Amino acid sequence: MEVKKIFLPESELPRQWYNIMADMPTPMEPPLHPGTGKPVGPDDLSPIFPMPLIEQEVTSQRFIDIPEEVIEKYLIWRPTPLYRAYGLEKHLKTPARIYFKNEGVSPAGSHKPNTSVPQAYYNKISGTKKITTETGAGQWGSALSMACAFFGIECKVFMVKISFNQKPYRRLMMETWGANCVASPSTETKAGQSILAENPDSPGSLGIAISEAVEAAVMDPDTKYALGSVLNHVMLHQTVNGLECIKQMAIAGDYPDVIIGCAGGGSNFAGMAFPFLRDKIHGKQIDVIAVEPASCPTMTRGPFAYDFGDTVQMTPLLPMHTLGHSFVPAPIHAGGLRYHGMAPLVSQLIMSGLIRPESVQQLETFKAGITFARTEGFISAPETNHAIAMTIREALKAKEEGKEKVILVNWSGHGLVDMAAYEAFMRGKLADHALPDEEIRRALADIAPLPKPKQYNPGKF
Amino acid sequence: MEVKKIFLPESELPRQWYNIMADMPTPMEPPLHPGTGKPVGPDDLSPIFPMPLIEQEVTSQRFIDIPEEVIEKYLIWRPTPLYRAYGLEKHLKTPARIYFKNEGVSPAGSHKPNTSVPQAYYNKISGTKKITTETGAGQWGSALSMACAFFGIECKVFMVKISFNQKPYRRLMMETWGANCVASPSTETKAGQSILAENPDSPGSLGIAISEAVEAAVMDPDTKYALGSVLNHVMLHQTVNGLECIKQMAIAGDYPDVIIGCAGGGSNFAGMAFPFLRDKIHGKQIDVIAVEPASCPTMTRGPFAYDFGDTVQMTPLLPMHTLGHSFVPAPIHAGGLRYHGMAPLVSQLIMSGLIRPESVQQLETFKAGITFARTEGFISAPETNHAIAMTIREALKAKEEGKEKVILVNWSGHGLVDMAAYEAFMRGKLADHALPDEEIRRALADIAPLPKPKQYNPGKF
Repeated sequence: MEVKKIFLPESELPRQWYNIMADMPTPMEPPLHPGTGKPVGPDDLSPIFPMPLIEQEVTSQRFIDIPEEVIEKYLIWRPTPLYRAYGLEKHLKTPARIYFKNEGVSPAGSHKPNTSVPQAYYNKISGTKKITTETGAGQWGSALSMACAFFGIECKVFMVKISFNQKPYRRLMMETWGANCVASPSTETKAGQSILAENPDSPGSLGIAISEAVEAAVMDPDTKYALGSVLNHVMLHQTVNGLECIKQMAIAGDYPDVIIGCAGGGSNFAGMAFPFLRDKIHGKQIDVIAVEPASCPTMTRGPFAYDFGDTVQMTPLLPMHTLGHSFVPAPIHAGGLRYHGMAPLVSQLIMSGLIRPESVQQLETFKAGITFARTEGFISAPETNHAIAMTIREALKAKEEGKEKVILVNWSGHGLVDMAAYEAFMRGKLADHALPDEEIRRALADIAPLPKPKQYNPGKF
Repeated sequence: MEVKKIFLPESELPRQWYNIMADMPTPMEPPLHPGTGKPVGPDDLSPIFPMPLIEQEVTSQRFIDIPEEVIEKYLIWRPTPLYRAYGLEKHLKTPARIYFKNEGVSPAGSHKPNTSVPQAYYNKISGTKKITTETGAGQWGSALSMACAFFGIECKVFMVKISFNQKPYRRLMMETWGANCVASPSTETKAGQSILAENPDSPGSLGIAISEAVEAAVMDPDTKYALGSVLNHVMLHQTVNGLECIKQMAIAGDYPDVIIGCAGGGSNFAGMAFPFLRDKIHGKQIDVIAVEPASCPTMTRGPFAYDFGDTVQMTPLLPMHTLGHSFVPAPIHAGGLRYHGMAPLVSQLIMSGLIRPESVQQLETFKAGITFARTEGFISAPETNHAIAMTIREALKAKEEGKEKVILVNWSGHGLVDMAAYEAFMRGKLADHALPDEEIRRALADIAPLPKPKQYNPGKF
């Protein structure tokens, strides 16, 4: 019988993360201080991040050692299995070989602990007593809560109010791991108070929740802030997944022609794709696709520009694809990936032509998720369904072209705590939704695009 | 670094199930026809089960081949990893070595697909078009829904009404896999109608739901019924887990002194314990503990007697530990394992002295679950917390005695879809509850205990 799952022994868990900054075709634009407009330095970031993470944010060292204490916790669920999707292939009658990396086996059910564990660890050794963060759907908040339990750090999560109300199970997971979770906008911060003063019924947004969490960290010297995506050090930690995949694909005797991941802030996508992009930069032919919702089309319709990471403009200005820091997706959208921006590293690699961004409508994503559940068993997170929808498109294209393509997709998490979104779909309460042009224009009124960086040219790197 | 998880390669997945009937110290009492009082034959069972499962129900063949089509689906999540609980050991400061088998990695999140997949398969090859079943907390219903999706069989689930209302996510999982799930008692069966006529607000019970599912199967020749626990063939299928464990413990270079599993109908416990009980029957010293809730103390306070499997007395009479077929646990009880009976095989092995039953109060179980989540990461199903509570007791006993005991526990599933029970605990809404003696006496008024079977005697087998 053919092998279904490719496991790595624990001894093969990568001992270093891969830092794509060492291999970028063009240097990254620096984050800017919102007051002075000058590049931010370590001192600007030290009120919210511990120094080891600030160093990882700016270093161009290609490989960074993973501390033993982090390895020990990674081993709770890593290395994760790489699956061959025989059931889905058979159903689609495709000649493509589809591999999916199952990041849903972590206790939190997603890829997020890949960075929450090292972030909690570096905070612990830096003397942090408490960490604040934001969470949207709740995957990041629960992953950080678990990591804080492992290292004995207090954890406070500002959860986007609409999710807080719709997803009690996520909140309860955080509490089980010992964290304190409040709905955002809250009355606990000035940022929250000002939003509530304007709109007492605000459903909240990731941008608002970030503002609250950052403010709460800044106000207390023993408290730091943690971000679950977007920043360079988060992408770095996630590469443990792609590095495993490289070994597992070698065991399978295959190499991907197409790599697919969904992208909200960009971290699960980057974790899978960056180690392979290193090969692409050195000449390998791979189609690397980042998939986003049509109702939050940051990469496909937002400019590459300096913008704030949060709504009330407390964070540094980041060079990234953005729909504007005040953007909030339409309420009809149920599939997550709602952030207004995109990781600067992912954004610049898109601009360089190394990553192909695509958007999909939500009905296609849920349909794909149900097909996947009935053929492969696993019920995917709504976010992950974006990647599955694109996988099905590519597998059908391979069938049309009669090509034996190898498709590798990051199955970033399960959806067992997100069944309300499936219910909305199955009851016919969802609809497709594309963002009107004028809404994008309005959101971007005061955002000036950056000059386009140098294009990727396979002959040149 | 020490190994955290012991994996078996897919080639080491057991190719046969182990049938403990071949090694029972005393022959099993037969199930009896409720009308005639005579042993039931295959013809009595054929309206509700396909013939291959009826054969497995009665055979005394020691090993039964697992069909290739079942192996193919097992490989979606099996072999499951055996974990060393370093985090919990350290927290308890115990000299015991604690191993837990992670059955939560299946797409349905529990051990239940070990039997739902072969049951769906044997129904498929026997021409069954539709399968009915009952479910309490929803683990079995979701596992059967998934298996039916794999083999293209229609699936109808009667879900105990109180769970149906409290656990919408479980129902949505079933629907995602294509099943039809209704609250029981329903108006779709005579059994349901008669219960509703007596009490329109009936919260339902497993016994009632079984009556409905059996009736729906009997009424249609293309429909069969599937049971997720209790019966011999279910125990058989679950042994794939214990057989893996034997290989994994050998890789670890250890052998269990204590084996622990929670028991509602008995199947996850049996699946882990039976392959080791074979060793015990042949002289090995192992303390094999089945753990149940103090508020549903079937094994520790119910007699070994002939009783119905369901409430309206449609099933054969089974020789088992029982609290009486009309028993319903107190509403304060939130930890699952609510069935009034116990698998005949488990019951008789208790009577023979090979299995030690224990009961625990619910506050201890949830406390144990939270300790486990904060040290090992994984959030357990409330049922599984019973096994963890007993594991902690045994680990602390080993510490007191200064003994390096090896404890093996079946971690039967995760609790991510059962967070409401954790919420009740964390908000102080749960209390301990022991069943009053007079309530047991009342429930058992018309149940006559069976004679005690021969005691297990290690020198003798």
